[in-house]
Amino acid sequence: MIVILKPGVSEDKRGQLMSWLEGQGLAVHVSEGQFQTVLGLVGDTTQVDMDLIASLGIVDSVKRVSDPFKRCNRKFHPDDTVVKVGDLEIGAGHFVMIAGPCSVESEEQIVGIARDVKAAGAHILRGGAFKPRTSPYDFQGLKATGLELLRIARQETGMPIVTEVMGTRDLPLFEDVDILQVGARNMQNFDLLKELGTWHKPILLKRGLANTLKELLMSAEYIMAGGNDQVILCERGIRTFDDYTRNTLDLAAIPMLRELTHLPIIVDPSHATGISRLVPPMALAGAAAGADGLMIEVHNDPMHALSDGAQSLKPEEYAVLAEKVRAVRKVVSA
Amino acid sequence: MIVILKPGVSEDKRGQLMSWLEGQGLAVHVSEGQFQTVLGLVGDTTQVDMDLIASLGIVDSVKRVSDPFKRCNRKFHPDDTVVKVGDLEIGAGHFVMIAGPCSVESEEQIVGIARDVKAAGAHILRGGAFKPRTSPYDFQGLKATGLELLRIARQETGMPIVTEVMGTRDLPLFEDVDILQVGARNMQNFDLLKELGTWHKPILLKRGLANTLKELLMSAEYIMAGGNDQVILCERGIRTFDDYTRNTLDLAAIPMLRELTHLPIIVDPSHATGISRLVPPMALAGAAAGADGLMIEVHNDPMHALSDGAQSLKPEEYAVLAEKVRAVRKVVSA
Amino acid sequence: MIVILKPGVSEDKRGQLMSWLEGQGLAVHVSEGQFQTVLGLVGDTTQVDMDLIASLGIVDSVKRVSDPFKRCNRKFHPDDTVVKVGDLEIGAGHFVMIAGPCSVESEEQIVGIARDVKAAGAHILRGGAFKPRTSPYDFQGLKATGLELLRIARQETGMPIVTEVMGTRDLPLFEDVDILQVGARNMQNFDLLKELGTWHKPILLKRGLANTLKELLMSAEYIMAGGNDQVILCERGIRTFDDYTRNTLDLAAIPMLRELTHLPIIVDPSHATGISRLVPPMALAGAAAGADGLMIEVHNDPMHALSDGAQSLKPEEYAVLAEKVRAVRKVVSA
Amino acid sequence: MIVILKPGVSEDKRGQLMSWLEGQGLAVHVSEGQFQTVLGLVGDTTQVDMDLIASLGIVDSVKRVSDPFKRCNRKFHPDDTVVKVGDLEIGAGHFVMIAGPCSVESEEQIVGIARDVKAAGAHILRGGAFKPRTSPYDFQGLKATGLELLRIARQETGMPIVTEVMGTRDLPLFEDVDILQVGARNMQNFDLLKELGTWHKPILLKRGLANTLKELLMSAEYIMAGGNDQVILCERGIRTFDDYTRNTLDLAAIPMLRELTHLPIIVDPSHATGISRLVPPMALAGAAAGADGLMIEVHNDPMHALSDGAQSLKPEEYAVLAEKVRAVRKVVSA
Repeated sequence: MIVILKPGVSEDKRGQLMSWLEGQGLAVHVSEGQFQTVLGLVGDTTQVDMDLIASLGIVDSVKRVSDPFKRCNRKFHPDDTVVKVGDLEIGAGHFVMIAGPCSVESEEQIVGIARDVKAAGAHILRGGAFKPRTSPYDFQGLKATGLELLRIARQETGMPIVTEVMGTRDLPLFEDVDILQVGARNMQNFDLLKELGTWHKPILLKRGLANTLKELLMSAEYIMAGGNDQVILCERGIRTFDDYTRNTLDLAAIPMLRELTHLPIIVDPSHATGISRLVPPMALAGAAAGADGLMIEVHNDPMHALSDGAQSLKPEEYAVLAEKVRAVRKVVSA
Repeated sequence: MIVILKPGVSEDKRGQLMSWLEGQGLAVHVSEGQFQTVLGLVGDTTQVDMDLIASLGIVDSVKRVSDPFKRCNRKFHPDDTVVKVGDLEIGAGHFVMIAGPCSVESEEQIVGIARDVKAAGAHILRGGAFKPRTSPYDFQGLKATGLELLRIARQETGMPIVTEVMGTRDLPLFEDVDILQVGARNMQNFDLLKELGTWHKPILLKRGLANTLKELLMSAEYIMAGGNDQVILCERGIRTFDDYTRNTLDLAAIPMLRELTHLPIIVDPSHATGISRLVPPMALAGAAAGADGLMIEVHNDPMHALSDGAQSLKPEEYAVLAEKVRAVRKVVSA
Repeated sequence: MIVILKPGVSEDKRGQLMSWLEGQGLAVHVSEGQFQTVLGLVGDTTQVDMDLIASLGIVDSVKRVSDPFKRCNRKFHPDDTVVKVGDLEIGAGHFVMIAGPCSVESEEQIVGIARDVKAAGAHILRGGAFKPRTSPYDFQGLKATGLELLRIARQETGMPIVTEVMGTRDLPLFEDVDILQVGARNMQNFDLLKELGTWHKPILLKRGLANTLKELLMSAEYIMAGGNDQVILCERGIRTFDDYTRNTLDLAAIPMLRELTHLPIIVDPSHATGISRLVPPMALAGAAAGADGLMIEVHNDPMHALSDGAQSLKPEEYAVLAEKVRAVRKVVSA
Repeated sequence: MIVILKPGVSEDKRGQLMSWLEGQGLAVHVSEGQFQTVLGLVGDTTQVDMDLIASLGIVDSVKRVSDPFKRCNRKFHPDDTVVKVGDLEIGAGHFVMIAGPCSVESEEQIVGIARDVKAAGAHILRGGAFKPRTSPYDFQGLKATGLELLRIARQETGMPIVTEVMGTRDLPLFEDVDILQVGARNMQNFDLLKELGTWHKPILLKRGLANTLKELLMSAEYIMAGGNDQVILCERGIRTFDDYTRNTLDLAAIPMLRELTHLPIIVDPSHATGISRLVPPMALAGAAAGADGLMIEVHNDPMHALSDGAQSLKPEEYAVLAEKVRAVRKVVSA
């Protein structure tokens, strides 16, 4: 950590600050420049309150030299993590197609869609049983019944399932779910993240609507700090000023996260755009940008979907898209 | 709800859309303009999927005419809500001063600060026992012990206490807390909001970092839909591009929310700025803008605080500020 | 335009508003719903001050039914515009590769790079002569000399040139430039836009850092309203909260703008990311998302570039990328 | 400037980087920590391309130690600047009230409003002659005629005038205007800023819609670098996600800028909110936060204003507000 002092600080005040820092077990190296003095702090600075130091009258600014994330940091773990779901591998070149409806609505619906997307090449079935909705008056999901229907669809098709968990209270119901999803609004629900850190299951962690990549990595770190290193990151669009699309898909996050972390990174173009017509171009763009997978909403009858019909592809549209995604993958990974 | 069709839509397609809408129990009024056709939907439109309609090829846009929030809406409840904590009243002209440290650290600390802020005119004691921190490696609060120390400070000073709850799991520990706080990162933790809707206690709901006023009101609605109408809204700064201050305090939210809702609205200038030197001017500005109260961090020894020392006032600074706040209140409410 | 009144507005006040609206030459249709009254305004509403009406005490909200942009609107001009530069066509399936250095530095530099990028398949040479820099102390470009060097490079290679104009004062120097670029910071420099509307040259209009697609289209409209309909839109990244990348490339803008307008849309992945390692994946993603072209910075010696070396590809890197871009184009346009 | 290397960089590569840096005239101090190596650069680093260094494969990050702004920096000019307009002083405790209509519409209108706001205590008359409008089809101002009417109002009332200039082309018309305003959309119109740097007149510089305080100061620096140090900064609201108000007034910018710069700082609550009902509370909040002045829109007949009627106060409302502002000023400056 580096502390830059304001010009003209007295020896006395500087001495006080240095004593206080040394009192916290740090070694302090002074470097005097022409215009300013810089203190370099050596030792365990993870417990040092950077904001507090920055707020002192004699301090110009404070800069952290090392990353605050450790376990998900590629610097300390150069090889790509491969997340395993049964025989299926995600990451390190293993590309995964996840598809299914926004909400599970009935056995017929979820089993039918599961068969369709599997035929189109999807590997994992998605479907919401517990639904986070902005309004308390909107459809909140079939809950335990929805999970039961997902299990039936898994049995019928052999596809592993991924579904969202909204809080610690319902966790016991998710014992045999293959991948647990943490939604964008819960990315910094630290109680939930800590609890998931004690599970031995892959976690699909979605980036929050206005969160930075560093914050996404810190949330992955919460899970990993508990001992669970099976984390998949998901870019699903961030909030910006435009109102033609629901969110803005930040595809540069893929190559950037690739440098920062060894975890797999997938893209959800459905929630990012909120408009089914925009899903195919953005899915292709995500594949071109180097994602490890795509999560796409598919519904057999979008006009009667109980949620997010606007952004759902029909099965036949998904099949055409999946074919093109494979062709793009072939070009970019050549 | 109003549906604006694209120019040149065939009678046939329009008829199909109208049948589908009528199939959902709505009456549809057609209004043909020179350049476009507008459909007015009458009936219970709360269950209509606006995004789905907007995504149809023949639709230009959809506009909701009525607010999605009901119970917190001033239209249906013109008088100000007064939240009561024992004899203390908040809202409808009753101004409340909340003060205390970011984190509860020891009995001596919390009791000492409680006495100091009470002497300066504060009505309610704040203090964090469960702390939401971006990093899993940061101090996470004293938890149950912290709550116990808050109870001691309450007993010693007679001040009611407000403290943050981070999830449903710990709720049983909060039985005798006077006001439960929902933090910014949990503003859309719907599981927690629903649970708090079943409690009979005031809830202090903080606006999320990148949330709109409408979303804040929808989260209040989640609590109120469960039967708990004792909700206090708190503006605590939103994320913007500047990096000199931690967040941007949106003070226009006060008069704007005043029009939209009957709930009390308070301001937290400490978290908004993150810098103690900026707290006094922003506290005064908050009072001038018409807030129903101020929540301010005070610490006897900011240099050794375990969290957020950078933004804490010393008790003597708080006393000077409180005096000025009362003077500004007198001017603006004259 | 639709005006939604608050509940319980008196006949009297409603009458006053209607008279005032009719006084502006509009017909007003009243539609009474169960909870609110809606006024539909018919006639030339382009001169109506929507904000003023929305601010009235009896009005709940106002919604514009028609788009404020006309000439660039696909509704009134369904076919794609093709911008022509000599024999070169841009738009309607004609894909254009623009490449060159951020700044023109010397004859040797610009001619050398021009030859290299032409060999790699680029069609148009870019290079900055007048440079908008955040700091007055940064390199401001070679100005008239830079334009002269661009002309030499054009003569040597036969490539048309595109370069940025920063204000009306320097416009006479740009007489024989092939495409004039308006930078992101000048997207709403209306004096400049109006002046360019009187020219008969293609204008490459970059989206501002925090501007919406509607604002981008309104700026195109400024140019087109003057009679110049040769406008190329350019997505170059918008400002968001993340600080690992310089800006966030909004690729969904491509398919979204495609629906809204008939103008060609290109992508600049160099300024969007600010990091040369991220340029290839984002260029491929831009092609996959359906852009009409790519503008990419190429420098023979990025380590000694006078500006933006960080984001420049070397010529050999550009050649590899160009090849892949063509392959992705083949897949997605199949 | 400080360069932090990635872990495990070879001696060889580090040596190459150091040679390259030394080749630019800098001294390089190496400091080896347990986990990383830090290079401290001493000398004139203003010309060093920080982004380029940050983009190198062996570099983790680069941090600038000194501020990029000099002339407006309080570090190098500790005393408050006082801007003088005739006998009137702005800054260093001299509070200024600026008022008038958004647009100049007629002699009767501007002279009438000028008299009204003067009677209420305003010191300077504002009024737009050249209007930046998002749409080319909106009213663009009376231009030269508008300036002439402002001169008449000045003669009639003795009030100095402030009005917006939109580009260099019209500058000759502004010879005898007292204060030239640069609008938010032109904050980074560097051609205009440079030209204004050569004038000897006060410039009122508005913060851009999505610009940081550092960028605002860099734009002030552009003007001051040309020799004109009479710059007044104006906070007028920034773009955020909420859509109930037009922009978000960032009042913490006042005390923050106060520390960073010696220039006067005023607030425009009219454009920030866009709603006249919100102007009084935000004006009072601005005064409470320590602004050096307030610029407020006043119109005798907002319902018939040619622009921004929605946000204009009536003269009698302004008089009541002005009185309260003075009372708040008395409290906070006590």
